[in-house]
Amino acid sequence: MAYDFWYWPIIPGRGEFVRLTLEACGIAYRDRAREEGADALMADMAGHAAAPAFAPPYLAIDGTTISQTANILFYLSERHECGPSGMKSRYWLAQLQLTIMDLVAEAHDVHHPVDVDLHYEDQKPESLRRAQGFREQRIPKYLGYFERALTTDQRQWLAGTRWSHADLSLFHLVAGLRYAFPLRMATLAAGFPAVMALHDRVANLPELQDYLASDRRLPFSEEDIFRHYPELDAP
Amino acid sequence: MAYDFWYWPIIPGRGEFVRLTLEACGIAYRDRAREEGADALMADMAGHAAAPAFAPPYLAIDGTTISQTANILFYLSERHECGPSGMKSRYWLAQLQLTIMDLVAEAHDVHHPVDVDLHYEDQKPESLRRAQGFREQRIPKYLGYFERALTTDQRQWLAGTRWSHADLSLFHLVAGLRYAFPLRMATLAAGFPAVMALHDRVANLPELQDYLASDRRLPFSEEDIFRHYPELDAP
Repeated sequence: MAYDFWYWPIIPGRGEFVRLTLEACGIAYRDRAREEGADALMADMAGHAAAPAFAPPYLAIDGTTISQTANILFYLSERHECGPSGMKSRYWLAQLQLTIMDLVAEAHDVHHPVDVDLHYEDQKPESLRRAQGFREQRIPKYLGYFERALTTDQRQWLAGTRWSHADLSLFHLVAGLRYAFPLRMATLAAGFPAVMALHDRVANLPELQDYLASDRRLPFSEEDIFRHYPELDAP
Repeated sequence: MAYDFWYWPIIPGRGEFVRLTLEACGIAYRDRAREEGADALMADMAGHAAAPAFAPPYLAIDGTTISQTANILFYLSERHECGPSGMKSRYWLAQLQLTIMDLVAEAHDVHHPVDVDLHYEDQKPESLRRAQGFREQRIPKYLGYFERALTTDQRQWLAGTRWSHADLSLFHLVAGLRYAFPLRMATLAAGFPAVMALHDRVANLPELQDYLASDRRLPFSEEDIFRHYPELDAP
């Protein structure tokens, strides 16, 4: 039976991390809000009394939800035995995944530093300040961590010989950062060759070719987490 | 064998969520940086090449690490069968735990809205703006979610009849918010009776009395995530 997957219908957002795992693992799903719209998403969210989701993305299963992006990936990977198995790999991949999600949250806060409920245009001077620290300190710090995780024993993938949700997510993270901060990422690329190679390896996965070429893969935009505002980028 | 637990030695911080679970579950551990200092923590962190931690807290196990606060709690709860078992409870508690950690991150960003590497004093006007949205929109939104999770079927604990890492964490979250925003939390308390009752229920757990009365439980302070700056609080 196909999963009922719910996320905002017009952006990749956090939902994209789930879509990539669903697609690469060959798990059947319906992208419900893309079929039925955002109002249907709001109505569905209001209905899960026993185990509500704080926010999309979530899977609706038997009247309850599995939510929080990383948690959905843990669930799908375990339930469908997709990716490396074993407790050691599982918790290692979980810590990488949660660290990826932390950088995603920071990427969002670059354009929303003082109030998540206001527009970017209402907090632009603060965004300019936050973007500088993000470009110069935070991106290199995080990419350095993933680089270290990959290069210690020349791994092809973050947990060794087989790709996982964390590899798929790191691919999308790099893609998002390149979209939002093309100048900065061009400068940084040479310093993190293993991360950049991993991005390319995921982009070329046979399991993803059909998806990446389809309209199920939504484009980045300035409604999304990763936003390209030229004034926030610099080499 | 006792776990080697590593976290900054002078603050509750994110480490406190781990300490509470270690203590309430009766799991043996050594709080290494409290014994040996912050330099020892930095040296240990640099040494875990095969599975590095991005940041404390972490457990050092067999030369590798288990890091990310929520992930450590998932590991300990599963490995030591502490709290409700079964896949359904596990993923439900994980989504609550991750949502708690999201609010913890937002509580931190109130006093560091534009640059995590600068002091609060260098971003005070921005903090004043961020604090308003945090007090008025974010705290009620999150507490309302936990209230809903608890009241739907009159649960004593977030996953039913037995306490879990998420209950312990929600206790500390409420304690931290009360420390940082006493005026606001006094106003809000009446609207979230189930959350406040859960806080008190955890505070009275027999398994925690020894710990809460000990000097292992570190006090809140303005070096911590939850900081009391009177100018950021309001009823």
